[in-house]
Formats: sequence, structure tokens, C-alpha cells
Amino acid sequence: MSSSFAIGVDLGGTNLRIAAVDTDGNLLEKITLGTQVLKGREFVVNEMCDAIKALEARYSNRGTLCGVGIGIPGIIDKRTGMLRESPNLPGWHDYPVRDDISQRIGTEVILENDANAAGFGENWLGAGMGYDEMCMITLGTGVGGGLVLRGGVWLGMNGMAGEVGHVTVDPNGHPCKCGSIGCVEQYASATAIMRMAREEIAAGDAPELEKLAAGPNIEFSARAIFNLALQGDRAAQRVYDRVGWALGILVGDLVNILNLRMYVIGGGVSNAWQAFAPSMFAEIRKRSMVYAATAPPDEFIAVGAAAKVSSQQPPPYRTVVTRALLGSDAGLYGAARLPMVKSH
Amino acid sequence: MSSSFAIGVDLGGTNLRIAAVDTDGNLLEKITLGTQVLKGREFVVNEMCDAIKALEARYSNRGTLCGVGIGIPGIIDKRTGMLRESPNLPGWHDYPVRDDISQRIGTEVILENDANAAGFGENWLGAGMGYDEMCMITLGTGVGGGLVLRGGVWLGMNGMAGEVGHVTVDPNGHPCKCGSIGCVEQYASATAIMRMAREEIAAGDAPELEKLAAGPNIEFSARAIFNLALQGDRAAQRVYDRVGWALGILVGDLVNILNLRMYVIGGGVSNAWQAFAPSMFAEIRKRSMVYAATAPPDEFIAVGAAAKVSSQQPPPYRTVVTRALLGSDAGLYGAARLPMVKSH
Repeated sequence: MSSSFAIGVDLGGTNLRIAAVDTDGNLLEKITLGTQVLKGREFVVNEMCDAIKALEARYSNRGTLCGVGIGIPGIIDKRTGMLRESPNLPGWHDYPVRDDISQRIGTEVILENDANAAGFGENWLGAGMGYDEMCMITLGTGVGGGLVLRGGVWLGMNGMAGEVGHVTVDPNGHPCKCGSIGCVEQYASATAIMRMAREEIAAGDAPELEKLAAGPNIEFSARAIFNLALQGDRAAQRVYDRVGWALGILVGDLVNILNLRMYVIGGGVSNAWQAFAPSMFAEIRKRSMVYAATAPPDEFIAVGAAAKVSSQQPPPYRTVVTRALLGSDAGLYGAARLPMVKSH
Repeated sequence: MSSSFAIGVDLGGTNLRIAAVDTDGNLLEKITLGTQVLKGREFVVNEMCDAIKALEARYSNRGTLCGVGIGIPGIIDKRTGMLRESPNLPGWHDYPVRDDISQRIGTEVILENDANAAGFGENWLGAGMGYDEMCMITLGTGVGGGLVLRGGVWLGMNGMAGEVGHVTVDPNGHPCKCGSIGCVEQYASATAIMRMAREEIAAGDAPELEKLAAGPNIEFSARAIFNLALQGDRAAQRVYDRVGWALGILVGDLVNILNLRMYVIGGGVSNAWQAFAPSMFAEIRKRSMVYAATAPPDEFIAVGAAAKVSSQQPPPYRTVVTRALLGSDAGLYGAARLPMVKSH
């Protein structure tokens, strides 16, 4: 058992999770709270600091605390430790998150974008384990991402790198709340799946989707649409073909630009892998001659079924596109990992 | 004066250039030969090796030869030192370029993609000087690119990184010879400019372009179309607006993904900067909220006039998009730089 540990925080729109993780990647304890965003920033920060202090006290006899890493949705200025943009955390804009929390708990705090943290988590203990370079794409309410280059989170100039959700896939497509048009996020997020299902209904010829939409609202979710697609419903399949098409263009662009070994797709929507992977892989192959020149043999490409960790590695110099493995814990592990790594 | 030097080779479709450059970046001598591709690979390799040996002999009294760097158009497998794809060098496919030349001249040879070499040159002595991170975009017959990250050429998994010319800007656009559709190269290369001018003529309402096309063929070039645009010809301006539009989407994507400080646009077509920069900057701002959050003050954005090196640096944490400075020598300097840097 490792003699030092860190505390990771994953502040999401729905849950606030705090975990103590040792440097070998063992989870010591995880605290899950609902994120009471509506009660205001002060309330959330207090809950977070109380949980951090409780975990620190509980495990101080087990080793040294390396520090605290916090993953937050939004664009972070790493230099100032502030949130620049965060639509899901009203009232947090231009608040010195890092310095205030660090002062309250008396420990070094590292702030990171939640998708970067998830990428770092998958890189440490999940699908990207053993790869020095990878790109994470998270499909949730929005589409986020994170790059790991040479073993560390790639921050870019001021921590804003990895905004892959706003890569253009259709310049004349659907308007995005970022101000652009036709961003990946408008075709591959849970929000976009719901919109595209409504578009299918409006166009007619989508009776099953229409039934779903008429039911209690909670049922008309990306997951319910996925289940319809699995059952062979053509309209639902068209929606997920569109998800795969957009992701294929994005991954093709990333492969052409970066030529990394490993692209990991996570977030809630990635559970629908079976429904979008076939169109995604077809599109990547078409969009990227670099991918075509480096694609692994077919047995390493899990298209129609859930990807499994294989004890066999694909041959070297192959581009791997695969599902994330840590589910919703990726960001929590990644956040805890941050203070363990010197360069942060 | 530096006590060691290297030899750089830039093997283009038109010219074969070989230069001795010292480690301070001083050009000792440059030899320019026509690339006699049609006389076959053996002929070209012999000419190259003779020139390298001549330069080595001539400057051996001036210091130590660090090695030889060669920039070649095409996709290179860095592991094997072979060309994987090179439409402009028929007969070079799967030939062990690096090892054969190294054996003939008895010196270590580093092989690099020509656009990567140009990026490394601009990073050493040109527009990217002093920046550890930059992206080069070269607009020539095709569109190429190169990334410099943490001071070195970013190779990716096997040297195929930086293929920014094949990023998708219009998924339903013009077919590309790479097999995809709507690549940047189909809108921002000299070849694409010629095609788009012909499209303008076909659509009518382009009398000046039509006159140009009716003249001797050499005149119907990207540069002649640029001159028309400068003179206010609307059809020619529409062509260059399209160039700027495509480049704007590409740079917006790159900024969103990588959040680098510096994007340098070079190659022959970049001489038409005045004609495409306004639409390019408008598109970048629209496409990238990261750019919008980090754009320099207006006086650092050279839109309507040729960019000049300013003795003033823009404020920190600003995204700079600017013209290359070394012209056609960028690749030659970059190739010479390769053996000077340990990590290669």
C-alpha cells in the first residue's frame, strides 16, 4: 500500500464527489453529494471544503497528503486559477476558485477542466493506461475533451486546450451556444441527440420516437433513444448514425493533426457505443489518410459490441479509438492524480 | 561565429536546395538545383549527395558537422526512414531514403516532412522565434503543416502529425485526392484557388477572371488572381474570401484543440495575405471562443496589410496568427536545424 495519497474533487452539474486516492490508484474513500448549485457558490464551496478536511483527517495516519485536485466544468485560466466560462455554474465566474479553496483548507489546490481531469484519469487507470499520449473525448450534456501529451495534461497557453467539442464538423450546420455553427457538440452530446430525435419526429416517419416523446419526459432521453436504436428502429438509428458521423469527422481531424496512438471516448453518451461506432469508424477511415495508414487489424476495432480491455495489445504504430473504462469516476481519479505529478 | 554547422536539404517538386548553416543560424552557402524528378530517383539522390559532400568538404575547416537534415514532401515513417506517401516523388515510395543517403555520405541523416521542417525553421529564425509552441500552416500546391511543441517538432506516433491540410472544413464539399471530402486543401491551396476561379467563371459574373483565363496559361495563376482581388475585382475577392473562410475554420479548430500561442501561415499562397486575412480573422473569431477569449489587441492583428515583425510583443496569453517570415527558405533552415537538436 502506497504511503501517500491525494484528494480529488469532481464538481459536476449534478453531483459533487470527493475522494481520497493513494498514489497506487487505490480508492480509499469516496463521498458523493448532490451539487446544490442553486443554494449558491458559498454553500457548495463549504460542503466541498468540509468533505476535503474530513478525508484529510481520516487518512492522515496512512501517509502524506500530496495535495488536492479539483475538476470543474468550464474554461479555466490556469494562471489565475479562475473560471473564465462556466454555463453550468452561475455565480462562479471570475471567482478565484483555486486560491480561495486553498486558503480555506490550508493545502495546495490544482484546478483543472473536468474533461482534462477525466482524460488524465483514463490515462492513469483506464483505457489509456500505459500510453504517454492520448486524447479524451467526453460526451455528456455537452462535448468536452482533454489531451495528454508526454504523460501530462496538455494545457496549452493558458489551460484552454482540449475544447474538441467546438471543432467545426458542419460549417453551415446547427448554431452552437459558443457562437459558432455546426460544432461537434451539436451532433454528439445528449442534448443534441434529443434535438435530433425531435427533428426526426418533425420530419415524420419516426413513430416510435414520437411515442417516446409523448410519454413522461424523463423517458425521452438519449438512453431511451439508444434502446430504440438497438431494437432496430430506423429513426433512432439515423439519430445515432449522425452522432457517429460527427465523431468520425472530429476524430479524423484529431488523427490528421496529432497522430496520437489513443483516442478514448467517454461520458454518458459513450454507453451508446454500439449504436454510433459503426458510422464513426467508417467516417474516420474516410476522413483521415493517416488513420487509414495506421488502423489496427479488425479484431482490435470493437464496432458492433461494447469494447473490452484486451490483454493483447494492438501492434505498434496503430491508431486506437476506444471506449473509456472508468465511467463517471474518470474525472475523480484524474483530479486526484494531478497533485501527484510534479509538472502540475 | 559558431564552431559547428549542419547541412539542410529541401527537396521540393521544383527545386532541390542544399545549404550549410551554422548553429547560430548563419547561412554559409546555399546550392539551388532544379529537381529533375523525371530523370529518376537515382539521379536526384546522386545530385543531392554530391552537393552535400561538396559543402561538407568546403566547411569542414570551419567546425564540426552536426549532421544532415532532409525535408521531403509526403508522409514519412520516422521509424523506418521511408516515405509512405508522396504524390510528387514518383518512384520514391518504400525506398529507404534515410538509410541509403546516410550510407552514401557517411553521416547521420534526419528525414522530415517538408512542412514540419518549414515550421521548425520559422520557429528557429522566423515568425515563431522565441515561442516554444507553434503551428505552421503552409499554403502551396497543397496545404501542409507542422507542429512545434515544447521546442521540438511534434512527430506524433510515427511522424505523421501535422497533416492540417486534410482537416475537414466542409463535410459535403469538394472531393480531395486523399479520399475525403471538403479538406482545407480544397479551398486554400494554389490548386484550389485556380479551381475556385474557374468555378466563378462558370457561374458567370467574373469577366476579369475570364480574360485572365483566356490569356497565356501561366498568367492564370493564384498570384494573378490575387492581383485582381487587390484591384477590387469582386469575383477574385470572392475566391480569396473562400480561402480565408477555410483557413479560419482550420485555425479555429486548432486553437480550440491546442490553445497554442502562435500560428504561422507560410507557403506561396501566403503572399496573398491581404486578400484572405480579413475573412480569415472574422471566421476564427466566430469559430473559436478560445480565440475570442485570447485575441490580441487590434494593433497586433495585421489584417489589411502585410504583417510586419514588431519589436513590441503582444501581451502574454494572447493567440497570435501571423505570416511566415522566411519565405521559401523556411524548410531549408528547419532541415538544417534538425540535427542540431538532440531530441531528433
